[in-house]
Amino acid sequence: MGLKTYDTTLRDGSQGEGVSLSLDDKLRIARQLDRFGIDFIEGGWPGSNPKDEAFFREAQNMEFEHAEITAFSSTRRANMKASEDPNILKLVNSGVKYVTIFAKSWDFHVTEALEVPLEENVNMITDTINFLRSEGLKVIYDAEHFFDGYVNNPEYALRTLKAAEDAGAEVLVLCDTNGGMLPSQVTKIMKEVKEHVNIDLGIHAHNDGNLATANSLAAYEEGAVHFQGTVGGLGERCGNADLCSIIPSLQLKYGERLVSDEQLKQLKPLYFFVTETANLIPRNNKPYVGKSAFTHKGGIHVSAVRKNPNTYEHIEPELVGNERRVLVSELAGKSNLKYKLKELGFNLDDFSNEMIKKLIKRVKKLENQGYQFEGAEASLILLAFREFKGYKSFYEIDDFRTYSNNRGDQTHSEAVVKMTVKGEKVHIAAEGDGPVNALDNCFRKALISFYPEITETKLIDYKVRVLNGNDGTAAKVRVLIETADLEKSWTTIGVSTNIIQASWDALLDSIEYWLLIEDGLGYN
Amino acid sequence: MGLKTYDTTLRDGSQGEGVSLSLDDKLRIARQLDRFGIDFIEGGWPGSNPKDEAFFREAQNMEFEHAEITAFSSTRRANMKASEDPNILKLVNSGVKYVTIFAKSWDFHVTEALEVPLEENVNMITDTINFLRSEGLKVIYDAEHFFDGYVNNPEYALRTLKAAEDAGAEVLVLCDTNGGMLPSQVTKIMKEVKEHVNIDLGIHAHNDGNLATANSLAAYEEGAVHFQGTVGGLGERCGNADLCSIIPSLQLKYGERLVSDEQLKQLKPLYFFVTETANLIPRNNKPYVGKSAFTHKGGIHVSAVRKNPNTYEHIEPELVGNERRVLVSELAGKSNLKYKLKELGFNLDDFSNEMIKKLIKRVKKLENQGYQFEGAEASLILLAFREFKGYKSFYEIDDFRTYSNNRGDQTHSEAVVKMTVKGEKVHIAAEGDGPVNALDNCFRKALISFYPEITETKLIDYKVRVLNGNDGTAAKVRVLIETADLEKSWTTIGVSTNIIQASWDALLDSIEYWLLIEDGLGYN
Repeated sequence: MGLKTYDTTLRDGSQGEGVSLSLDDKLRIARQLDRFGIDFIEGGWPGSNPKDEAFFREAQNMEFEHAEITAFSSTRRANMKASEDPNILKLVNSGVKYVTIFAKSWDFHVTEALEVPLEENVNMITDTINFLRSEGLKVIYDAEHFFDGYVNNPEYALRTLKAAEDAGAEVLVLCDTNGGMLPSQVTKIMKEVKEHVNIDLGIHAHNDGNLATANSLAAYEEGAVHFQGTVGGLGERCGNADLCSIIPSLQLKYGERLVSDEQLKQLKPLYFFVTETANLIPRNNKPYVGKSAFTHKGGIHVSAVRKNPNTYEHIEPELVGNERRVLVSELAGKSNLKYKLKELGFNLDDFSNEMIKKLIKRVKKLENQGYQFEGAEASLILLAFREFKGYKSFYEIDDFRTYSNNRGDQTHSEAVVKMTVKGEKVHIAAEGDGPVNALDNCFRKALISFYPEITETKLIDYKVRVLNGNDGTAAKVRVLIETADLEKSWTTIGVSTNIIQASWDALLDSIEYWLLIEDGLGYN
Repeated sequence: MGLKTYDTTLRDGSQGEGVSLSLDDKLRIARQLDRFGIDFIEGGWPGSNPKDEAFFREAQNMEFEHAEITAFSSTRRANMKASEDPNILKLVNSGVKYVTIFAKSWDFHVTEALEVPLEENVNMITDTINFLRSEGLKVIYDAEHFFDGYVNNPEYALRTLKAAEDAGAEVLVLCDTNGGMLPSQVTKIMKEVKEHVNIDLGIHAHNDGNLATANSLAAYEEGAVHFQGTVGGLGERCGNADLCSIIPSLQLKYGERLVSDEQLKQLKPLYFFVTETANLIPRNNKPYVGKSAFTHKGGIHVSAVRKNPNTYEHIEPELVGNERRVLVSELAGKSNLKYKLKELGFNLDDFSNEMIKKLIKRVKKLENQGYQFEGAEASLILLAFREFKGYKSFYEIDDFRTYSNNRGDQTHSEAVVKMTVKGEKVHIAAEGDGPVNALDNCFRKALISFYPEITETKLIDYKVRVLNGNDGTAAKVRVLIETADLEKSWTTIGVSTNIIQASWDALLDSIEYWLLIEDGLGYN
């Protein structure tokens, strides 16, 4: 058989701090994992909570294109029959063909945590696998704490492994549960284990030493064929091994074939989907899939990448669905800004060297005040237009007000805006969920009769961060607003000591940017 | 000589997306790196921008306990004398004893990016090092793209390295500039390089393959003695090798001595200091130094860790200045909540099983509504008090209002609060930087005559995140407020469809928590 991928985002991943998945979230993630081409999707531990039990009920009615859903559990409890353990019976009733059983490999854990005799632990492994197989299930065996156990008592660790092999497990997955192994230890232990067992080996690594990818690859180089991990490395403490690193490494660097080329291009979308569904913030510098993973900022890098991308990129970003980006910031030389302007659709001939210098100066000045255009390209485009293109805004604001009134648990917010659109005075009021939302509603209400398509745009994210004035100056806030229409999203920025002002500036840019594009200036 | 650490946070680190360090930031970071025990601090590239030049001017007047400050530059430009290249002269005038020179090792880069004949590139290395040594400087040599260069043309890559050795460099640092190497490649290439050179070797890794720590350790196992990286792995694209992983690995797992035990306990504070100074969000699941690195959530893990922490921890968190934490969430069993209550100073005897169950139910219900107590323990403590301790708030709120008025670029905000404190009606108004700040000011103004020490507390961070309603329900916002007094900081949470209401709830909790502690209930 070829290499197999095993995703445990829905079980181990949800043990990460800040991760909380609803039943619906879990089902939607399972669907995406299947489409991406994952071989095994661990759905949860039906014996541990009602949500996981419900998952397996629902999953039975779904059709998966490729993946096998697996149910997870510990072995039977001590001193009882596997056939009478309610946890084990829930596995049998979960409607899956594959189950994953974990058991202790480390003698210290057996006696300290489990408080069971060493012999009984081995019996628990044998009995559980025998019973599950007699029920027609295939068993994936997770040897918890295998590496730590092997370092401390290799004989006992191997004995538990052999018990699982003899009872008929499909694959023995060696777990670095505490995540503290070094790659050279994994290599050494894999070499030794291979001499004692004769079935497929897998690896389940954690990232406590920042080595989960390396440990998984070390196991691969010693013959492991089954790779457990989570999307984005979600999981307890420092997380599980990150399938978003392991899969492209094996496929692009070792030439293995885990998913199709088309599926691999869905790697970045998969990462964003899972991260957003878990309501976490995607990590920009995430290898392969982060927004910054192929982003160039240093002047030398940018000018080299313009000549040939291989100069500073280890793979082509498109292979994993990512893209090359170039940033404009105070570190930027002229080459960054030119690259950026070209990418944004400007004709470089329109810009003299003087204009470029002036724009860089303006960017640096604003960044010094707390702006960051790296994450707010729509505001950067507007800046360039305002500076150079004789740009006239689509409207003028006279003034605005917001009110919020609280009584008990309820707060009501309202805004009033006076503005001029296409020569007409507009004076408008609206309510909203908070003053910013009320302003947003006002603004859209004012524009709708002039620009009816504005209903297609929607504010999708709103982030506020306090910029701590290290020098004791007044604290500023930076507001980032992400807006989307039916086809795309864009981000704008506002900075002010007043959060309402900062939000308003970002809000204005967000609509103005959209109007600019819709006005047919050739951007997309 | 022993192993040496080389920090490039101030140069390579500041090329990371979203990183922007002021001159003052850079000087303060250098001070902390020195105290932590870093051997070499790369201050910047004096030839590339005025801020870096200013850094070296200022650094000359600072006394460092241990570290050497180094100045970075490329070699001389093609077809000129090193002694006449303005960049090289800036190095000589930067007041340092050590300089770091980087040059191309990859023939493709020499011809494609630099556009210089292969022979001239070698001359540039020789001339530059010779000239700098004649000026009394010691030279660290960074062989840019060494590994990629070696894979493509080992003879030429070695030739550039030999040129640096022959010219008298102190150490040859092999760079994986594109970050795409595998640990087994690093091992193999290190072995081969050692046969050709006779001076110290170092490693400079990037994390594009999620392997920067592993590649640095692979180099160590083959004899490298000099380790370049940044605090928290800041840097271009996916970042540089993370000294916060490499240093504890070498010290705690390989038994090397890079810093003192006391200094190592400053690792987590160093990470937070640098991250905060760079105005980035610390990553919770960062190995060794993240807030979640020793945080337990799964019920089984928690009950085992209560028996013996070694069961699920690869090192003692205290060794790196971190701490064990246990989370309360919907995954939590009773053991998590009990551990937490005990940690928070509650007497467990005060809680019946019924009370624990009721509290878990309440936590789950609130988390389902968008609360997340993992990051807001102060709010969790208040919740427990409110449920069980016959807790009476320090004040009652009747109602409040906020106003924000804009004209031109200016927005003025004001708040009015009616409340009862210690039986007295208080009706108070205050201005502020935005409505939340105005409410905060009102609230403090109302309480100051009753609790004068309230002036010691200060709101230090305010974060807002929109919780996207996947089911099309109205979007909620989650507000997290971090408040500090002279000794500690704590975080509180508010969730509502109205940002003002959510902010107000978090604000109230933040002050109430402080009053509760000051009231002598034994928390700290």
